[in-house]
Order: sequence, then structure tokens, then C-alpha cells
Amino acid sequence: MTTSLYTIDTPAAVIDLPRMMRNIARMQGRMNDLGVAFRPHVKTSKCEQVVRAQLNAGAQGITVSTLKEADRFFANGITDILYAVGMAAHRLPQALALRRRGCALTIVTDSVASALEIAEFGRNHDERFPVLIEVDTDGHRSGLDPHGDELLQVATVLHEGGMSLRGVMTHAGSSYELNTPDALRALAEQERAECVKAAERLRAAGFPCPVVSVGSTPTALSAADLRGVTEVRAGVYVFFDLVMHNVGVCGLDDIALSVLTTVIGHQREKGWAIVDAGWMAMSRDVGTSKQQRDYKYGQVCTIDGTPMAGCLLGSANQEHGIIVCEADMGGDIVARLPIGTRLRILPNHACATGAQFEHYLALQADGTLQEWGRFHGW
Amino acid sequence: MTTSLYTIDTPAAVIDLPRMMRNIARMQGRMNDLGVAFRPHVKTSKCEQVVRAQLNAGAQGITVSTLKEADRFFANGITDILYAVGMAAHRLPQALALRRRGCALTIVTDSVASALEIAEFGRNHDERFPVLIEVDTDGHRSGLDPHGDELLQVATVLHEGGMSLRGVMTHAGSSYELNTPDALRALAEQERAECVKAAERLRAAGFPCPVVSVGSTPTALSAADLRGVTEVRAGVYVFFDLVMHNVGVCGLDDIALSVLTTVIGHQREKGWAIVDAGWMAMSRDVGTSKQQRDYKYGQVCTIDGTPMAGCLLGSANQEHGIIVCEADMGGDIVARLPIGTRLRILPNHACATGAQFEHYLALQADGTLQEWGRFHGW
Repeated sequence: MTTSLYTIDTPAAVIDLPRMMRNIARMQGRMNDLGVAFRPHVKTSKCEQVVRAQLNAGAQGITVSTLKEADRFFANGITDILYAVGMAAHRLPQALALRRRGCALTIVTDSVASALEIAEFGRNHDERFPVLIEVDTDGHRSGLDPHGDELLQVATVLHEGGMSLRGVMTHAGSSYELNTPDALRALAEQERAECVKAAERLRAAGFPCPVVSVGSTPTALSAADLRGVTEVRAGVYVFFDLVMHNVGVCGLDDIALSVLTTVIGHQREKGWAIVDAGWMAMSRDVGTSKQQRDYKYGQVCTIDGTPMAGCLLGSANQEHGIIVCEADMGGDIVARLPIGTRLRILPNHACATGAQFEHYLALQADGTLQEWGRFHGW
Repeated sequence: MTTSLYTIDTPAAVIDLPRMMRNIARMQGRMNDLGVAFRPHVKTSKCEQVVRAQLNAGAQGITVSTLKEADRFFANGITDILYAVGMAAHRLPQALALRRRGCALTIVTDSVASALEIAEFGRNHDERFPVLIEVDTDGHRSGLDPHGDELLQVATVLHEGGMSLRGVMTHAGSSYELNTPDALRALAEQERAECVKAAERLRAAGFPCPVVSVGSTPTALSAADLRGVTEVRAGVYVFFDLVMHNVGVCGLDDIALSVLTTVIGHQREKGWAIVDAGWMAMSRDVGTSKQQRDYKYGQVCTIDGTPMAGCLLGSANQEHGIIVCEADMGGDIVARLPIGTRLRILPNHACATGAQFEHYLALQADGTLQEWGRFHGW
């Protein structure tokens, strides 16, 4: 069967494989140089072949955002899995079932209330859950104050409650709001130092703390050193996207995910081309709208992946996108992008765009395509 | 098996069935009163049971946004289907296959180039495709000028090319930007009058034009009369959402779709509760951000569906949402919304939020839940 970007149905999520492999090698190389283990976050791709490439490059274990991801990747033979969202009590039976089947699942908590639930459930089921305590190193979202009392209280509940306290983890998600190397390096250092501080406090109080886990794509790519850190987590680097380009950690030509689309109409007077990639394909993510360069719903590229300067996916309905080109490009949009023209759109946020599709089309250097499944839902 | 909102896994997409049935009855009743056929747009739900309820209430045929929807609903026994996105040539074989299996599929065009492709493909395969010409009645997106020459040129290409020219269709999507009854009524009249004008021009030129199809949820609910229109299309009314509430066509207590979520953590000093509904559950749609009331990522409700005034899903990461309550509510967020608390979030945009889930949980008046599948992708 011959499929190509010229014949497959659109919209389609295309992975540029040489770019993806380069992104994987870049991150793994950095982690090797910094002397830390790397545990990729698979929430970005939810795809077996992508994760296999990350592991083949040297990653040690994976990070997941749902227990469905844990289930699916465990079924693919991956056992070392960190579920990096605060554990809800009603999900403990599912976590237990995974562990009983042989999955080395580690879970996370950031409160005494949740730690008590984990410890009680674990004792009632004779299961010594490995647990990381989440700490907050940048005020971004969840996690305990690395300097506060509750850190030690949670450690006490877990350790005395018979769980396996494995250490601490953090995610400096505010790195997405930065856009200079200096600011990123400073936040990476803050993430490192605060997380290591939490680990040192636990050890000083007599608790075990073998794991110190940090990470986000921007900080992982900006850290100057990672003393005291044992592992780094990052997800979106595998594909990169326009938000990461604005943050300053990748070029447009590193972005490995794009949406293939077909021109289906025009509004000649307005200079619009209508395409079949709407928000259902791109997602509703407009993450660049508050960054220094607003790409609207995405950067338009020719079918070979070359960005068309001045042409953006300006707006989107469910199955319609509107391409708007800067006025000074001149010429008639109907002549420039006739009906049937195929284009590729670089997304704002690869995690959100990928999630809109049931599979990826992996485009190899020789132009051949492979269909790679991805999953969806909880 | 007993499942309830207190025990099922979260996040989950919950349909309040009494509300949905009321929304369906309201729209169908209006259409009956106005003397037009109603053809619901199934892109909102992509769910067999929802669409069956719309047809049982009196809808005549369905509207789809993808040929996958046509395929799935035809497999469910629905034959009268309008594919309301401009036909791309590469999809004609799939449309032909549907018609050959007995699906009464009607397709749409808004250009001479596309009409030529349809006519040529149809002749080459001895298929007389039924076609509507899309007209633009509000400058919103696609469609031909109802007053322009190209309308008659496209009709000529289709009619002389041996296709079955069925009439005209339009979608006044700019209605989503309005928020007063007068403005909505005026746009509904503009949508009607301009589409009827296009039909009259076709008939005056000797073309057949039995179908005059208009619609969007806000205009359908605002039209004072629909003289000359034969059918109306609308989709999101079946669930409604916060955008439609801001437009002014539904109350908060008409919104039939919500996302069930669990509190998994807090940031006490900031007054935040962290829940397991992030943007992967809500979608990235922040459609109320430019309306008179910005609901951020959604309106927080108690588990029984009662809105909690002043509490919004203020921000969202992939699997984390942050609930922010207005400062003057007082009290400790940890005490008010302890870990494990279940809440329901009303979405900005039901079409986008529904698409994040593999199934809905249909909540009946007696509190019992049924799982209804929905599909995804292209």
C-alpha cells in the first residue's frame, strides 16, 4: 500500500521522524552530560513507538499523567513507571492492581490527608507503595513548601505508616512563562536547589530519600548543573511546538509534529484560504497568544515542512480553519493556494494537538509513512 | 453493578438527561412552531443515544462535520445525512462509497473549482451527487456571496454537469459573538433573508432549489419567522454551555454537560483547590474569555449540579485544574473542599469538552448512570 502526504486523508498528525530522533538525542545527551537519569513524560505522545525510541536512547523508566497511561505502557512491557499526579484515594485500587501484576509503579502525594489515605489503604492490602512527596519550587501549581513543616509531617505519615518513602519530586511549570536563557537557567537552578533542599531536610530528619526528581522541558534544557538531582522528567521536548519556540528552547525546524491539511475554499476579497484543519485538529490551545509572537492557531508550512512566512492559521471552527497571510505578500490567495493544496500547520502545543488524533503518521527521511496508534481518555 | 457520581472514576463527562431532553424539546418545539424541518448537527455529541433522542423528538435527518460521523451514524441506521463542510476532492471516493451503500448523503460546495471536481467525479462514476451551494450571510467563514455571479456559475457547473442541485445552505456563525435578543433576532433575519435571496436568484435563473437550509444555535433560538426556509441546523443547543449562556440563549441550569472531578490537593495560602480535571478534560477552549463574563476554564458546581457562586476553574494544566474562589467567600479552602470532594464543572464549549472523552455518563433523574459511547478522530 502506498501512502504519502499527497494521498492520505486530512487532517492528519504528522511526526517528522528525523526531527523527533534529533530532539530525543539532544535531551538524552544533555542528561548524560549532567549525570542524571532521564524519565520522559509520555503524556505528550501516548504512543508506544515514540516511547520506545526514548527508552532506546537511554531513558530510564517513564512518567505518566494518568493510570490509563500506566496500564497501556505496562502492557507494552514497561515496568518502571512514575504516576506524577497527586494520588486520589479512589484510584488506589487501580494502582494496587497494577503493582500486583508486576508494575513498579511509584505514586505521589503532597498532603497529610492524602498520605494518610495511601498508608491506610496500603496497610489494609499489605502493599508497601513507593511514594514521592511533591514539593512546590516555583508557585506554579501543586506541591508542598520545601521549607515548611508539612513536608516532614507527610514523610512521617508515609514512613511510619509502612509505605516506601522514595524521595521528592517537583515540576517548575512556570518555566513556560519565560523566554530568556538567563531566566530559564535561574529557574532551573531554583527548581534544583529547592528540591534538593527538601531532600536534605528529609534526610536530616532521618527519612530515606534516594530519589530527587525534577523537570520541565525548558528547565531540563537550561540547567547548568544538577547536583543532588537523581532524575529529570520532561515531555514536550520530544515534539517541541510553537510555545517552546517562543520560550526559546527550540527552533521552528525542531518542531516534529504538524497537522497535514487540505485547502477546501477561499474568501478571495479577504485573502483567506479555508482548510480542513479546525480546532478539532489543532486543539483549542492558543498558548502563544500571550507570548512575544502570537501564532494564532498555528504556523502554516508547505507540504515539505517549510514555514510560509507571514501565513498563520488565523482562526478555527470545529472542522474549518482560516489561513490568513500578511497583506504585503501580494497576489491572489486563490492562485497562491488553490483548492486541494496540502499544507502542514505547526501547533502551539504538541500535547494538546496530538490528543485530538487517534494515530500519528510517522514520516521517515525517505518520505514513507507509518501509522502509529495513540490512545485517548482515562 | 452500582455506579454513581460518588464512585465512578474521574474526570468524567456527565450528561444531565432531564436537561438534555428539555433542550431537545425546546428546539424541536420552536422549529415545529416556525413550520420548518430540523436537522441537528451531531458534531456536538458524536453519540448514538443523543442523536436518537433528537430524531425521536421529530428531527428529520442529521448534519455532520466529518465523513466519519456520516459513516458511524449510517451504521446506526440513519440515512438522511448532510455533510456540511465544503467537499474536498480526495474525499469524493468515500462519499461515493457511502451513497453506494444506501446513504442519502448530500454534499456542499462554495466554488467553481470544487463544483467542477464534484461534477467530473460524479460523471466518471455514474453518481448524481445531491449538492447544496453554501452561501455566506454574515462574513463569518466560508460560502459564496448570495448576490454575486459565482453563485450562478457554481449552479451551472453542478446542474449542467449532471449533479442534483438541491439548493442553498448557510451558517451564521457570527451569532456566537452577540449577546442581546435584538441583535440575535436581527442576525437570524439576515441569515434567513440572504439565504432565501440566494435561493430566489437560483430559481429565477431556472435552477432547481428545493432546499433552503440555515442555522446556528443562537439564530435558531432567536428567529421570529423563517419564511422561505425549509430546514434549520443547530448543534450545541443539545447540551448548551457557558458561551451560549453569555450569548443569552440558555440559563446556567440548562447546561446539560459537566465534567465530574475530584479534589486531589490544595494550596491553602492561595485559596486554591487542585482537581483532576485539567485541560485534557475541559479542552483548551476559553471561549468566554472575550465575553461579558469570563468563566476561565469553567463554572464550578457541587456534585448535585448547583453552581458555587464565585468559584471557577481558574487555570488548567494537562491533568490538573486549579479552582479559585473569590476572596470574599472567606473560610479555609481545605475545610471547604477537602481532598476527595467531588465537583462538577460546567464547560465553556460543549463540543470541545465532549470531544475529550471516550464516553459520556448519562445521569437520569433517579440518579442512575448509563455509559454512552462517543467517537473521536477522522
